Amino acid sequence: MPRPARNRPSGEFEFLAKVRSAVEALGPGPGVDVGIGDDCAVLRAPSWARRHLLTTDTVVEGVHFEAGWLTPRELGRRAFRAAVSDFSAMGGRPLWVLLSLELPAHAAQRAALALVRAVAAEARACGATLVGGNVSAGPRLSVTTTIHGACAGRPLLRSGARRGDVVMVTGALGGAAAGWRALASSMPRARARTASAAYRLPPLRLELGQALASGRLAHAAIDVSDGLLQDLGHVAEQSGVRVQLDASLVPVHRAAIARAAAGGVVDGERSRLLALAGGEDYELAFTVPARHVAAIQALARRCGTTATVIGRVLAGVSDRT
Amino acid sequence: MPRPARNRPSGEFEFLAKVRSAVEALGPGPGVDVGIGDDCAVLRAPSWARRHLLTTDTVVEGVHFEAGWLTPRELGRRAFRAAVSDFSAMGGRPLWVLLSLELPAHAAQRAALALVRAVAAEARACGATLVGGNVSAGPRLSVTTTIHGACAGRPLLRSGARRGDVVMVTGALGGAAAGWRALASSMPRARARTASAAYRLPPLRLELGQALASGRLAHAAIDVSDGLLQDLGHVAEQSGVRVQLDASLVPVHRAAIARAAAGGVVDGERSRLLALAGGEDYELAFTVPARHVAAIQALARRCGTTATVIGRVLAGVSDRT
Repeated sequence: MPRPARNRPSGEFEFLAKVRSAVEALGPGPGVDVGIGDDCAVLRAPSWARRHLLTTDTVVEGVHFEAGWLTPRELGRRAFRAAVSDFSAMGGRPLWVLLSLELPAHAAQRAALALVRAVAAEARACGATLVGGNVSAGPRLSVTTTIHGACAGRPLLRSGARRGDVVMVTGALGGAAAGWRALASSMPRARARTASAAYRLPPLRLELGQALASGRLAHAAIDVSDGLLQDLGHVAEQSGVRVQLDASLVPVHRAAIARAAAGGVVDGERSRLLALAGGEDYELAFTVPARHVAAIQALARRCGTTATVIGRVLAGVSDRT
Repeated sequence: MPRPARNRPSGEFEFLAKVRSAVEALGPGPGVDVGIGDDCAVLRAPSWARRHLLTTDTVVEGVHFEAGWLTPRELGRRAFRAAVSDFSAMGGRPLWVLLSLELPAHAAQRAALALVRAVAAEARACGATLVGGNVSAGPRLSVTTTIHGACAGRPLLRSGARRGDVVMVTGALGGAAAGWRALASSMPRARARTASAAYRLPPLRLELGQALASGRLAHAAIDVSDGLLQDLGHVAEQSGVRVQLDASLVPVHRAAIARAAAGGVVDGERSRLLALAGGEDYELAFTVPARHVAAIQALARRCGTTATVIGRVLAGVSDRT
């Protein structure tokens, strides 16, 4: 039976005091007048903020991960990186973060605090500050990360792709899906952890996304969260174009190649399927004028990754609805 | 077994298209360049926005409400009003709303859409626009409402109470807690619905909160969500003062009086306990200089409510930690 005013995890105020201390230990965040502890966070926007950006992402135990797959710290880092990936895709800068936790009755306060600390530290490493959130009882562990940020120039939209653009993708794909499968398999735990590194810690593409937007190098961008085919489908639909993908050009993550190997023989089709449709890679896919390809590849190297041409943008079909 | 890139409710994209249509049918929201449908919402802050405000609130089935207590529309309105109550307490204006839903496998898409529509309409009635969110599978229905807004002047904080202030509260308290108990009881459904009106639809105190802040009438404010005693405790602690409450002055909601009645005799102590500690009333408690009391009472009347003096602010104790 639920009870009003008592529908919070036990020791909530003590927990929130610890969260507040942990965040304050990271030092004051830029633009934060009032962080955790009042009815709302009170914030000052930076002078360069031409447009504000908002996104949110939720991960639920039993849906997006299983108990034991991720340490609390890994879960916190992964939750933040999955959410901030939307900022990479827009070329924006994260500023302020809200974290909403649903904690089951058996959840250890220590583990929850480790999760929150990880979100706060990961946010800070990206220039953002954890400024508030919510803690509620719930049937299973659930983490909702909401990020508010801004961009100085025009944000990169899904709807900007133009006929004649080439399609590029950062890094290699299929690693997260392969990692997922390794964790869900009967593989020994130590091996599964090694094979799931790409799933457990998504890459950060903020710097590259910001450079693509501020340099007006790309016309459209999206993060690879649903799977490359589906994500490029969103770009095609919202831009009113068709995307011609050369599947043989898509870089396949080594974890996906390893996952598709048996007895020393790699099943190339199976590994490519993980790369094309696996999802949750949190790499960037974007469309650019062909003349910018070399500059973008050099930029990607400076950002510690690669950018590969994987297709091109064709005119839309006339009967598109 | 969870599956990557498939950990979303079935028909998610169709559902999101319907949500987008429902929101677009309300007309374009002020400052919204890109709403639902891209990686982030893209927004323009109004020129009067001196400070930005952020808050989030979650309600979970089985924790904050039980199945059958609220229609989907009631749940949506209640979720938004509970979240926006933090804006009333700061004297802020809500601008943009994100809604994160966890939907169990058995949830009907039609009910979920009615819930989202209710949030969007309630937000619009308060000048705000639903600009994005997230839909995820989950073990139980869960609704997280995140509101971004701003204030033109100084926000009202919990920490501003001063020695000599009087403490005031809007409306009457205990109605939500009484309503909760009616719904959880074996009372016939029609009677329980009548008795739970205050629980099902919290009041809106935005206009009054904004007037208290912009007129510099109040020193500190908080919304009555945890229960009056606990909420005034937060004000006292964060302001470094003591609050002396005269419990006999606290207006008791008629639903709480009815709840505490048996055989025609009202148990005054029981009804007052609901008012002092019940929680979830979403009225405003605030501290003001005594000279402003009459003006605030007139203001409250113009806003369709009452404001009652219920105590005063004393100097803090010297050994306060």
